[in-house]
Amino acid sequence: MTGSLVVVGLGPGNPDQMTPEAAAAVGSAEDFFGYFPYLDRLSLRPNQRRHASDNREELARAREALAMAAEGGKVCVVSGGDPGVFAMAAAVCEAIEDGPEQWRGIDISVVPGITAMLAVAARVGAPLGHDFCAISLSTNLKPWEIIEKRLIAAAEAGFVMAFYNPISKARPHQLSEALDLLRRHLPPDVPVVFGRAAGRPDEVIRTVALKDASADMADMATCIIVGSCETRTIERDGKSPLVYSPRSYRGGSI
Amino acid sequence: MTGSLVVVGLGPGNPDQMTPEAAAAVGSAEDFFGYFPYLDRLSLRPNQRRHASDNREELARAREALAMAAEGGKVCVVSGGDPGVFAMAAAVCEAIEDGPEQWRGIDISVVPGITAMLAVAARVGAPLGHDFCAISLSTNLKPWEIIEKRLIAAAEAGFVMAFYNPISKARPHQLSEALDLLRRHLPPDVPVVFGRAAGRPDEVIRTVALKDASADMADMATCIIVGSCETRTIERDGKSPLVYSPRSYRGGSI
Repeated sequence: MTGSLVVVGLGPGNPDQMTPEAAAAVGSAEDFFGYFPYLDRLSLRPNQRRHASDNREELARAREALAMAAEGGKVCVVSGGDPGVFAMAAAVCEAIEDGPEQWRGIDISVVPGITAMLAVAARVGAPLGHDFCAISLSTNLKPWEIIEKRLIAAAEAGFVMAFYNPISKARPHQLSEALDLLRRHLPPDVPVVFGRAAGRPDEVIRTVALKDASADMADMATCIIVGSCETRTIERDGKSPLVYSPRSYRGGSI
Repeated sequence: MTGSLVVVGLGPGNPDQMTPEAAAAVGSAEDFFGYFPYLDRLSLRPNQRRHASDNREELARAREALAMAAEGGKVCVVSGGDPGVFAMAAAVCEAIEDGPEQWRGIDISVVPGITAMLAVAARVGAPLGHDFCAISLSTNLKPWEIIEKRLIAAAEAGFVMAFYNPISKARPHQLSEALDLLRRHLPPDVPVVFGRAAGRPDEVIRTVALKDASADMADMATCIIVGSCETRTIERDGKSPLVYSPRSYRGGSI
């Protein structure tokens, strides 16, 4: 009998930002696969089994989960944020495409979650209020030249940008290089938001001008939003500034 | 006494995709502003007041909400999806920037929600699994030439694209023009997902090749995801195909 596999987004970490749909999916599964800090967020019953793994093992984890579902398991694969944004849903699809024919018969579902850029944006106003893009800066999965090409295209076309995986131990300089590149294509005062653990008790949100942005303001759990030429900052007495991208294009920046 | 204003994302429409954080924000506010179908989703108590308005009145609505908060109100502005993505959070920020100094003293908060593209992506697999962008096709707020420039930039740089506001009564041809433009910049078999009411009982999700995509597959409530050269479709016997963008760049498309 073929089982089921649900890929669930737990949201950014604040339990109040996890949807009832995600909670229900977790409640009805029996075997849980995921990066161990995400599994640590779940309150599992004694008859629900954990299969934790390290990050950078996404494809092996997806295969293991699919093999168990193919044998009839009720399997849950968890992601932080949204599972469709640089996360496990694509890894599961890759594994299905390259795997045994039988895996195509497994009931697959994906439960969306609040992805990091939305949680970070909410903490400062509305920096994603106009056209925007999301780019993973990790060079584990694509060459740096492609990232550079996309950064330049996004800056020149007027997209706000959200960076995922901005820093990795294997390549500590990628964020510095990205910021240096953007300084050659965007005005120096464009706001840059560094958001870590948005909505959690250990949240750190910091907004600086592009000219002052540096890689040491981020770690691997930071989501970074780089404004476009049109993104604005509203200073407020005794409150943190609001950062937003106007809904309407005001011209002059392209 | 200055009051508070919270901008809340209700998610795509399925109540199980609305976060507990959003539900709590709704529960503690007293005056509700929003496009009337979004207000209709709320179960308000008798002492909670509705101030419904039509769409395309975002800025006037934001000002009215801020004026009430400035007088001590506990005000909630609601958006479908996420309030920071082509929605009310930016309208509120715009109104604050151009409004009386006192409005900068209002306690403003934004509660994120599941935005349409995440809900649609989840229903088909992981089309947003690699770098992607979100573009509003509405010409109410920006000239068509800017939209064209961004479509070309996104196609050539290899971004998957999500389109919001694809059709409007005032400009019924914008989606046709966008698809025609993309056919000149992307291969004919790139998958295009039309997602309407994702996660709701009246959900319609349809995936076609770019060469077969047409504007009559969408209405103003449809979110459209256009794959990149790398986006793949997995056919499955007796099940809808999976559409996903591999995490790793496989080369050759740029």
